[in-house]
Amino acid sequence: MSVTYREAGVDIDAGDALVERIKRLAKPTRIPEVLADVGGFAGLCALPGGLSEPVLVSGTDGVGTKLKVAFATGVHDTVGIDLVAMCVNDVLTVGARPLFFLDYFATGKLDVDVGEAVVRGIAEGCKQAGCALIGGETAELPGMYADGEYDLAGFAVGVVERSRILDGKRIAVGDAVIGVASSGLHSNGFSLARRVLEKEMGLTMSDRVADLGGTVGEALLTPTRIYARAITALLAACGDAVRGLSHITGGGLPGNLPRVLPDGLGARLDLGSYQRPAVFQVLQRGGPVEEAEMRRTFNLGVGLVAVVEKGAADRAIEALAKSGEQAWVLGEVLSVGDVPFEERVLFG
Amino acid sequence: MSVTYREAGVDIDAGDALVERIKRLAKPTRIPEVLADVGGFAGLCALPGGLSEPVLVSGTDGVGTKLKVAFATGVHDTVGIDLVAMCVNDVLTVGARPLFFLDYFATGKLDVDVGEAVVRGIAEGCKQAGCALIGGETAELPGMYADGEYDLAGFAVGVVERSRILDGKRIAVGDAVIGVASSGLHSNGFSLARRVLEKEMGLTMSDRVADLGGTVGEALLTPTRIYARAITALLAACGDAVRGLSHITGGGLPGNLPRVLPDGLGARLDLGSYQRPAVFQVLQRGGPVEEAEMRRTFNLGVGLVAVVEKGAADRAIEALAKSGEQAWVLGEVLSVGDVPFEERVLFG
Repeated sequence: MSVTYREAGVDIDAGDALVERIKRLAKPTRIPEVLADVGGFAGLCALPGGLSEPVLVSGTDGVGTKLKVAFATGVHDTVGIDLVAMCVNDVLTVGARPLFFLDYFATGKLDVDVGEAVVRGIAEGCKQAGCALIGGETAELPGMYADGEYDLAGFAVGVVERSRILDGKRIAVGDAVIGVASSGLHSNGFSLARRVLEKEMGLTMSDRVADLGGTVGEALLTPTRIYARAITALLAACGDAVRGLSHITGGGLPGNLPRVLPDGLGARLDLGSYQRPAVFQVLQRGGPVEEAEMRRTFNLGVGLVAVVEKGAADRAIEALAKSGEQAWVLGEVLSVGDVPFEERVLFG
Repeated sequence: MSVTYREAGVDIDAGDALVERIKRLAKPTRIPEVLADVGGFAGLCALPGGLSEPVLVSGTDGVGTKLKVAFATGVHDTVGIDLVAMCVNDVLTVGARPLFFLDYFATGKLDVDVGEAVVRGIAEGCKQAGCALIGGETAELPGMYADGEYDLAGFAVGVVERSRILDGKRIAVGDAVIGVASSGLHSNGFSLARRVLEKEMGLTMSDRVADLGGTVGEALLTPTRIYARAITALLAACGDAVRGLSHITGGGLPGNLPRVLPDGLGARLDLGSYQRPAVFQVLQRGGPVEEAEMRRTFNLGVGLVAVVEKGAADRAIEALAKSGEQAWVLGEVLSVGDVPFEERVLFG
């Protein structure tokens, strides 16, 4: 008896079937710059016209253990939105326009329907971000993942005119720190969230929690917001008055806001300036989780921070609101001197 | 007692420590186009000068279950070369110059030394490919991977002048098919290879096999060749006489060569034109694995195929040899009419 690749756990036909479905899903995400007629091994994308010194901006990320919630609930068509969001929001922070996206989907035994659902979410995320799903890899890795599980990685590339790169260097004392609402946990802190909800509180993903307005699984799976349209609107309305953007991911506000602040500057944030979303309150009480740990693990309801010239704060908030985002003055920039990274964000 | 993120299995300090080591490893891969002074959330790279209509070329891939060999042997500093090779060789097939690379490294419990070894390999691969390691994501995902295991995904972006895109469209009947030697399995077919070696032959990774000239683990871990310098040399020597390039990955010669052939054309390959590397002979006998299964699973010693105008074949082989690659005439292009994809490659 001879041995085959299929017997060794790799089903090339299933992979091919998924690739055909992916092609259909990717098609509506095409932008004019994509060259579809060429290339069998790689994705090809021209640059948008009108840029005199284009700079490529790239980011990669995963969804973390938010995937475990998808496994537990069987809902696989939203984590792809998270994947695009995590990558694209990083690219957006330097003022770039997202151009294209590639995904890596790895599983132990390929389930074509699950794979298709995941990619459906990715394509939806790409549409929200205005970028093309231009390529990807589906890897069937026997023995690497538990049954029914998979991992996801995403890669986004955008482009920005060199003279328009937002690097935070112009941020100055007195600038307004604008908070832009998150939709919930986004894709960070899930290992702690699941530990609290499942172990400390004894809940399952299908349990309803009144404060959450639905099941635990629904609250946790809420897709990460993609701020592409919001940032386009913000830059159109405020131009150079926008001085820095920070994507609030792992590390929370103290771990991310300083990444865009010049040396010696910090920010004082008023966490009482907005209503902290219920999911964070449930987690904090349920742990309990100390406030400092909450702040450096979760976004606490702030998915993006825009640092703008003080006089432009109202205009910024209005532009963000018109694009569908809740935004408010979260704090202001101040001088902190030479203090450790995370201490540059003060609360209260 | 309150609950912390660390207790939930995520050690932010370990992640930060690894990031510092990665920065040191990435630095020597920098190319002049990388803008290092800006951007905290994303990687930034300008375009090389002198391109009138630049097209971005992107590819993503993983290393597959070759990782299992790294886990079994404890050798973690070569799979990164494989990761870069799998992505960059795809980008090279359209005639593009690789610019930058990003990696995604996911594990259950972060071991900083293992992570550093993996990234050391990635940085080595980037040096071989002439591209910059510009970003990456280290994900600690408790409960997603077995102890001591990890997954890797890579993402490469290159650039090509639009008029110089190699798309295979100019390939014609009578063109020479040049085989370029692989270094062994590269990064495909490992689930089958391990099944044969471990299950059918009862070998472990540390067993010595005379035909392999070393241990099973050493033979399997041989890094995938990166054909960046070779293709640069080939294009310099043969110019437009190079009509198509095919990276021989999963699917082998019949699965990959047709990806670059125009409709109606196929290729007749003479597998007796070269010495098949010992590792494939060991696997074929050890399974046994049928010849057809060998052909569609493994590269069988051919890592890259260049289709060149017949009169340029000698020049191509000489240029490839000078750049350090073994190359030979593997076959020729012929008309096959409207036959199924894999049947467009004939043997014998």
